[in-house]
Amino acid sequence: MNKKQLVAAIQSTQSFLCVGLDTDISKLPAHLQNHPDGVFEFNKAIIDATKDHCVSYKINTAFYEAMGLKGWEVMERTLHYIPDTHFTIADAKRGDIGNTSAQYARTFFETLPFDAVTVAPYMGEDSVRPFLEYENKVAIVLGLTSNKGAADFELQQTGSEKLYEKVLRTVSSWGTSDNLMFVVGATQAAELANIRNIIPDHFLLVPGVGAQGGSLKDVSAYGMNNDCGLLVNASRAVIYAGSGEDYATKAQQAAAEYQQEMALYLKK
Amino acid sequence: MNKKQLVAAIQSTQSFLCVGLDTDISKLPAHLQNHPDGVFEFNKAIIDATKDHCVSYKINTAFYEAMGLKGWEVMERTLHYIPDTHFTIADAKRGDIGNTSAQYARTFFETLPFDAVTVAPYMGEDSVRPFLEYENKVAIVLGLTSNKGAADFELQQTGSEKLYEKVLRTVSSWGTSDNLMFVVGATQAAELANIRNIIPDHFLLVPGVGAQGGSLKDVSAYGMNNDCGLLVNASRAVIYAGSGEDYATKAQQAAAEYQQEMALYLKK
Repeated sequence: MNKKQLVAAIQSTQSFLCVGLDTDISKLPAHLQNHPDGVFEFNKAIIDATKDHCVSYKINTAFYEAMGLKGWEVMERTLHYIPDTHFTIADAKRGDIGNTSAQYARTFFETLPFDAVTVAPYMGEDSVRPFLEYENKVAIVLGLTSNKGAADFELQQTGSEKLYEKVLRTVSSWGTSDNLMFVVGATQAAELANIRNIIPDHFLLVPGVGAQGGSLKDVSAYGMNNDCGLLVNASRAVIYAGSGEDYATKAQQAAAEYQQEMALYLKK
Repeated sequence: MNKKQLVAAIQSTQSFLCVGLDTDISKLPAHLQNHPDGVFEFNKAIIDATKDHCVSYKINTAFYEAMGLKGWEVMERTLHYIPDTHFTIADAKRGDIGNTSAQYARTFFETLPFDAVTVAPYMGEDSVRPFLEYENKVAIVLGLTSNKGAADFELQQTGSEKLYEKVLRTVSSWGTSDNLMFVVGATQAAELANIRNIIPDHFLLVPGVGAQGGSLKDVSAYGMNNDCGLLVNASRAVIYAGSGEDYATKAQQAAAEYQQEMALYLKK
């Protein structure tokens, strides 16, 4: 799925919700804890329950890697289970020298055929470039993240601007709004108007709504552009909305609530 | 293996060589290209051939992930094949918000019991902290990398210093020289004296000697401290020293040459 198809999906679903599959084996409902394939069963039920309310799924690779070989295999099956009407993101935050980034691009665009992968910018152009060489694939580069540590480097003054502003401005010159998106945390809504001055056309992947405390209303007010331009991610707030046997119903309700609120902002 | 044991190994081996297992299936010698377990057979032979000349092995996770499930399995077996007399590094360049970084720490310190993992600093303290909470494990944080893209952000002026200097100074305050090391590219030898002013006691993992053009002599002259304080990585220059059936012998010769040169610098 490419950007144009994503924009169409947002219009028809009236949602810009991305559901984050940060599935932690220790947080599965009790009846799935000892299931031999518990994580996949959980993901499958969450996808079935939420797919009508969201346009994207984000797989946080860390949670799968922590399970070792079995986790990698579950990640693969989960990706293939996601309907191809949805935009798939590997939240992997990779980035290395050119020949190594090329291997990561191969991993997340070919071996595991995601539509997009998150990329760390610290090492500069040759670390990002290999992700931009695939047609109809997207690199989502870290701009300003939702965590407290964003203050340590991202928000530091670098010449006449903050580091994250330099990152947005510099990285956006390496590609187009078709093959580049940026991560901007929902807890940083105050910076969103400014961010839209630097990158008016790019999609923003916005984590931090829900468990991390960001406001969907503020993000929509300051971050939306003519294409919508937002993918708001909720992970824990959706997938762990319930903790009993009715977890999928609870997840559906949580996703539907986000979708209804998003529909209001899309109509404005 | 912890830092103290690494220092002892460097003394007894008279080497501070780390061999990088960036094993690319397309670069295997012809007779291994169609071997059902070619990458592992190659790694096994390289380890057997080089272990007397180096003190560490670095597994570049990208090359294994690109092979999917099979690659993850080969990475696991390769790690377990490395003798426990050697310091093992997952070159994974991970980093995310706290609860996700905790999963990455679990991946590379427990699920795959490496001694150390490389970590990207962009997202700040809570993205690094989970890696510092393990006893006898080491986070190797990106400082100044060996690639051209280092100029884009790492070398940019941030207040009174360059970004990578701020990273070294700030990150070093989060841990000790026992649980923190830094990546400094060999192509940046001119900056090494300055780096030693900021972090006199920390080990530096130095890639970029060999294929990327860095000089072992310069790195040793400007980067060594009382503990040696250097792990110089060579990947392609060792593992692809030969391309025929004698690849292991060629790798041994390349590693032995590095070791002999290193012994001279250690005696100074």
